[in-house]
Amino acid sequence: MNRVVVVGVGMTRFGKQPERSLKELAREATRAALEDAGIRELAIEAAFVSNAMAGAIWRQESVRGQVFLSGTELAGIPMFNVENACASGSTAFHLACLSVLSGMYDTVLVLGVEKMIHPDKDRTFRAFEGATDVESLWAFPGGGGRSRQSMFMDYYAEEARRHMELYGTPVEIFASIAAKNSRHGALNPYAQYQVPQTVESVMASRVVSDPLRLLMCSPLSDGAAAAIVAREKTARRWTSRPVFVAGSVVLSALTGPASGGTEKKRSNVERAAERVYAQAGLGPRDLDVLEVHDAAAPGELWAYEQLGLCSPGEGARLVESGDTALGGSVPVNPGGGLIARGHPVGATGLAQLAEIVWQLRGEAGARQVEGARTGLTQNAGGFLEGDSAAVSLHVLTR
Amino acid sequence: MNRVVVVGVGMTRFGKQPERSLKELAREATRAALEDAGIRELAIEAAFVSNAMAGAIWRQESVRGQVFLSGTELAGIPMFNVENACASGSTAFHLACLSVLSGMYDTVLVLGVEKMIHPDKDRTFRAFEGATDVESLWAFPGGGGRSRQSMFMDYYAEEARRHMELYGTPVEIFASIAAKNSRHGALNPYAQYQVPQTVESVMASRVVSDPLRLLMCSPLSDGAAAAIVAREKTARRWTSRPVFVAGSVVLSALTGPASGGTEKKRSNVERAAERVYAQAGLGPRDLDVLEVHDAAAPGELWAYEQLGLCSPGEGARLVESGDTALGGSVPVNPGGGLIARGHPVGATGLAQLAEIVWQLRGEAGARQVEGARTGLTQNAGGFLEGDSAAVSLHVLTR
Repeated sequence: MNRVVVVGVGMTRFGKQPERSLKELAREATRAALEDAGIRELAIEAAFVSNAMAGAIWRQESVRGQVFLSGTELAGIPMFNVENACASGSTAFHLACLSVLSGMYDTVLVLGVEKMIHPDKDRTFRAFEGATDVESLWAFPGGGGRSRQSMFMDYYAEEARRHMELYGTPVEIFASIAAKNSRHGALNPYAQYQVPQTVESVMASRVVSDPLRLLMCSPLSDGAAAAIVAREKTARRWTSRPVFVAGSVVLSALTGPASGGTEKKRSNVERAAERVYAQAGLGPRDLDVLEVHDAAAPGELWAYEQLGLCSPGEGARLVESGDTALGGSVPVNPGGGLIARGHPVGATGLAQLAEIVWQLRGEAGARQVEGARTGLTQNAGGFLEGDSAAVSLHVLTR
Repeated sequence: MNRVVVVGVGMTRFGKQPERSLKELAREATRAALEDAGIRELAIEAAFVSNAMAGAIWRQESVRGQVFLSGTELAGIPMFNVENACASGSTAFHLACLSVLSGMYDTVLVLGVEKMIHPDKDRTFRAFEGATDVESLWAFPGGGGRSRQSMFMDYYAEEARRHMELYGTPVEIFASIAAKNSRHGALNPYAQYQVPQTVESVMASRVVSDPLRLLMCSPLSDGAAAAIVAREKTARRWTSRPVFVAGSVVLSALTGPASGGTEKKRSNVERAAERVYAQAGLGPRDLDVLEVHDAAAPGELWAYEQLGLCSPGEGARLVESGDTALGGSVPVNPGGGLIARGHPVGATGLAQLAEIVWQLRGEAGARQVEGARTGLTQNAGGFLEGDSAAVSLHVLTR
């Protein structure tokens, strides 16, 4: 693809922030990205705004971006409200890249924001329900009547058990991934959890949905993250540290006849990986650092295999090798992943991209992957017929 | 702008369709657009899906496009869920055009669908609330406590009274617009209302919010509309009746300091018109036919003035001249407008575009504007600080 450049990124700390509004979070991340780019609001020609839950939780069903950014100097520009469940942020980023490639816009903001902590927890759980086909909600694996809270974790648990049976993967592997990401998160000032865990402490936390323990699962979070992308010619004026978008892919779940049956079906991530590697002209062995969608720890294990970091069934061995920890040959989730950094749904995809940008610029501080030149983000959202409803992959290079 | 071509359009009839699901409506409109283009699902590389209310009304908060199109042959392709309140459909169309111009996608579907009729009417009214800043809901003109049902109609009524005071516009002008659109709707087999009204019958309908009568207001509706856009080179293979996108603009409300104060503020539509005319290289006098956002009849009057069909304050005279009725020099809302065709929020922008495409191809049957070569659509959504939160204009030519 032609060259789109990330000229600035920024984010709030993720975490429980009941005293802060969606507007405050949105504006802090936007300001941080503008400052990082060294540009003023006036340079921004359009905004792509990602949010998945403000309707269900806060009743802000429509024109979310216009509301979050009302009264700022960005008010008045074209604003696009984009949704793809937990993959909303990377989907908005993809559309922002297309808008720059189109020639219509030169420099655009991508903003993701989510405020999941509400005094009435049921509202948050109801928002999760909306990320699958609500008509088939009671046909969800395991049947009806289960807690809405654990719906997605039940799905991860079921897939985790399948992996354990098929390949003899021990449950401690998932604890090991969670512990690794908590160690990484402890080095990230933006992370919700900055306390290193051990395999033992993860295993000792309560069972959410067997074999998943609480500390293997991403938390509910408030937060925002933003990026500014521009066409290369313009970007050169602003930054001496350009990060290029070498590949950008969004795909949806194969459902019905299109899926070719459950057995034969290739996962969204496998299909998307093939595309994004082709766009970028590289393969998994060329990656120096990754941010992947560990909404629960098994998600990271599948990502290893589906992105081609290792062969199917070899994920556990890769964990044991230490190669995916900081200091290893291909660190995964140096920012702490969704488990430790937190998972404010609409912001997550952009936090992943921000982390890779910092890594490629050599600005990641104590969690820096030395000499990182090429990074990949994997973001997934929703659930339909046994796969994520949406998936988005990006390859960034310097 | 470079040339994007509309190669197919389609829609369901609009109206109260309690027995039909969002999926059924979405699929009927999609199938119609594919058949109109004469292409198969396999040719579609991405889908932009517009919906504003399925979260609030039907709890389908996320991955709406993936759910509406699940099990079809479109499942699996990139899907983008786009929201901009009542301007969602045209916003999705704008992004679809950008995606084609970007070179990433060659041929894409734009689908708008809405199902507003629910046994619990309160759900629908709550969805309307979400189209303004919910935090400031009780600071809405007229103060708190008013019926949620009439919130937007109160806004239209207030602006209508202002126009009446400023320019001496008689209330019958609004009835005249509504009657005209009902006559047009009577010629449109897709319209929700196909019964011609008179100025007298409109004036005799109940007062919703003075001076607005019920028959001056768009109804609640179920329905879907779709378009397929492609890059010109590809489109030439499929169609001998290309309709070109000559201009495509989305803008947001000016709020806070950016607005320059209420008095000085130019409306969203005025700002967008300047842009879209510049893109298309033409002006209001070059238009043969328009579809404008008459969510209530005064909206059409403002559109005349803000789009430059006449000077400010001259809208009433334009109505009286008959020029904007079928047979006049510049017919407006030949499809019946939102008042008669119906207003399933997420689908409206695409129904407007479909009508203009039919008009430019000479396929509009009894409501055909003879020799129409250039058309404009105006679609608006939401409400922030005295203006629509989002507005989108398109100019199409053959």
